[in-house]
Amino acid sequence: MPETAAASVPADAPRSGLSRRGLLGLALGGGVASLAVGVGAGLAGGVALGRARAADEAEDAYAFFGPHQAGITTPVQEHLHFASFDMMPRTDRDDLVSLLQDWTYAASRMTQGLEVSATGAVGGDAEVPPDDTGEALGLPAAGLTITIGFGPSLFENEDGDRYGIAARRPAGLERLPAFLGDDLDPQTSHGDLCIQACADDPQVAVHAIRNLSRIAFGRAKLRWSQLGFGKTSRTTADQATPRNLFGFKDGTANILADDSEALAKDVWVAASDDPGWMAGGSYLVARKIAMLIETWDRVRLSEQNTIIGRDKGAGAPLSGGDEFTAPDLSSSKIDANSHVRLAHPEENGGVRILRRGFNYVDGNNDLGRLDAGLFFLSYQRDPAQFITLQRKLSTDRMNEYIRHVGSGIWAIPGGAEPGSYVGAGLFA
Amino acid sequence: MPETAAASVPADAPRSGLSRRGLLGLALGGGVASLAVGVGAGLAGGVALGRARAADEAEDAYAFFGPHQAGITTPVQEHLHFASFDMMPRTDRDDLVSLLQDWTYAASRMTQGLEVSATGAVGGDAEVPPDDTGEALGLPAAGLTITIGFGPSLFENEDGDRYGIAARRPAGLERLPAFLGDDLDPQTSHGDLCIQACADDPQVAVHAIRNLSRIAFGRAKLRWSQLGFGKTSRTTADQATPRNLFGFKDGTANILADDSEALAKDVWVAASDDPGWMAGGSYLVARKIAMLIETWDRVRLSEQNTIIGRDKGAGAPLSGGDEFTAPDLSSSKIDANSHVRLAHPEENGGVRILRRGFNYVDGNNDLGRLDAGLFFLSYQRDPAQFITLQRKLSTDRMNEYIRHVGSGIWAIPGGAEPGSYVGAGLFA
Repeated sequence: MPETAAASVPADAPRSGLSRRGLLGLALGGGVASLAVGVGAGLAGGVALGRARAADEAEDAYAFFGPHQAGITTPVQEHLHFASFDMMPRTDRDDLVSLLQDWTYAASRMTQGLEVSATGAVGGDAEVPPDDTGEALGLPAAGLTITIGFGPSLFENEDGDRYGIAARRPAGLERLPAFLGDDLDPQTSHGDLCIQACADDPQVAVHAIRNLSRIAFGRAKLRWSQLGFGKTSRTTADQATPRNLFGFKDGTANILADDSEALAKDVWVAASDDPGWMAGGSYLVARKIAMLIETWDRVRLSEQNTIIGRDKGAGAPLSGGDEFTAPDLSSSKIDANSHVRLAHPEENGGVRILRRGFNYVDGNNDLGRLDAGLFFLSYQRDPAQFITLQRKLSTDRMNEYIRHVGSGIWAIPGGAEPGSYVGAGLFA
Repeated sequence: MPETAAASVPADAPRSGLSRRGLLGLALGGGVASLAVGVGAGLAGGVALGRARAADEAEDAYAFFGPHQAGITTPVQEHLHFASFDMMPRTDRDDLVSLLQDWTYAASRMTQGLEVSATGAVGGDAEVPPDDTGEALGLPAAGLTITIGFGPSLFENEDGDRYGIAARRPAGLERLPAFLGDDLDPQTSHGDLCIQACADDPQVAVHAIRNLSRIAFGRAKLRWSQLGFGKTSRTTADQATPRNLFGFKDGTANILADDSEALAKDVWVAASDDPGWMAGGSYLVARKIAMLIETWDRVRLSEQNTIIGRDKGAGAPLSGGDEFTAPDLSSSKIDANSHVRLAHPEENGGVRILRRGFNYVDGNNDLGRLDAGLFFLSYQRDPAQFITLQRKLSTDRMNEYIRHVGSGIWAIPGGAEPGSYVGAGLFA
């Protein structure tokens, strides 16, 4: 785990704790006295009843600050809570900046197994609402990563250039074009901002999103959110390839964290790319892909294999070999419209993406069918990479068994330096 | 883990595999050839590509057969997938019995880390749909328990005594009375049958419910289901007390698995209790309790503590001591309408229950508030125990911050003996 860092209070925080506005959000209803909580008390104070308890638990903590945001090449964790936010009406540039500063501050603490502020859930004045909601007290960092992104609508929407950043929008950052088979629900699509929280404990991921939503009070509002589990991709070679809800291994050919050449070519925005403030960043595409699993389950095994282009058991391409053998696309055993062929870089001008998806189950519908599928997440240097692949998949035989019901795209800025905040370059 | 058993094919299964009806369900759409799959091939055959891979993983397997069903006193696992089913129209007693036999067979295998049948996801005829959906291939048993129950409507509903069992309904097994604050959604309440699947890996729990739903095809249909995480109760002394989404430790005073006296008095139906077929069983109450967490989060800490009657940090009763100190109900520090006081056995004629709840987050509503709360599960010897407690809680100060949105009650028969099936006594 190359990103592992000792759990410690960040050496240098963006501000001396939550902004006044952030504290107002937390303490709403607590009256004037609430203003006294935590202002300036952020990092200097001790953590009375902090979360991180033992040195060995600190090994589960990934550094928050650095050239890239964590949660992209970080070994994929077991659980996801993804959230999309819209800025509130009549907010201004200062609100947006203070929100990003407060999120950075809280995220830099929570990822180290600490509470959102020094006083946390129980260490502050008992006569005001606690800063931290408390359900992660006693839990370790659990590999938590928090990854923050900016949607196209943040730069400009029907209300115009709300934050004076329209001119700085990356050219490729626009709502994705319609794809064949799209059945998008606006209630689970798009958003001004996103936060991807991944952790090995769902309670830790949920705690992060809940507290970041709370901190956003008055500035941004949760638009939609999604829980996921059973990671469907791996980002390091020592992770076993997990299975999606079609029962197939997924992500065998993913870009791995140690493939610096592929990361530089296909994932990270280069310093020479436009706009400059995105250097070290990436573009995130989220697609909520509902699977018609009861229908799929009635397909005979040989046909399932043909549709995917791999053997369900071992995950080997149908052209032969084992899971990690490259598919031989000249073989007729790999169907012309199989998923593995259409998604292959050779069929797409060499395009690759870094996938980081999760399975989801949201209960069931009135017919007694599970409302389940894949919450697809991919990171790429340019949104055009995803668009190329998704267009190619228009003839994918798998399309009969899936439906894209949610969609979003966000610019993921590079990581923050200690003392700064995520996205600072956009406002420089 | 006293219930731990080596992962192995059950010594004696209820039938020689899935019933013909069960196989028809699995293979629907596969045509006549499907009938050949697995009939009689159940337990004798080897497991070509089974799930359990190494001896040490087998330590995560709990015995399925025994005097009590697993999943009640079993150390609470990390994840829940709970499902409620309704029998299909025009099904008869034989359908119900064959369903319970097929569920027993599949459950006895999956809890040992095996696939639902010997041929499983990839070991059968490639020209028919696989028996197993495959997403748990390669995963261990992960502590999976599968607990099956019978709702009041199974015994008699508006269509009458469909299965010839109305006369055998336990007297206390009836839809729960209305409680103050109920806001029940019929879409997440009640049901002819229930299955509680708990595991330390959500993919394993989801795989179990998915495959049991599939096996039920044509006989029973999923009515509603719920995922949960972050167990909010402990059932053994060595489990740390987890926290609910109010940030408080929950389940400190739960009945523990080694307290055989309390289990005999308050959890297990005695052989002398009526009806005799419920001996070794219990009654399960499920309540989906939505928490108004954003409202709660604005309550000052001292008031939160007063409402619960415990200290949020350590979990100690406000009358003093540590988490495991008994609350002193004579102390005025414990509010008259605090949760800890009203729920205490001393205030309820000595009544206790075994709790086994989980936190849930189902996304968010249009206001940007998390749709989250507690999926409360309790086991008791008599449903009257729950009713007594819930009525007492009518003045609970916590009620301002919660809403009961789902409800169900099921008779949980004793465990099946090898060679028999869950609930066999009901049909004897």
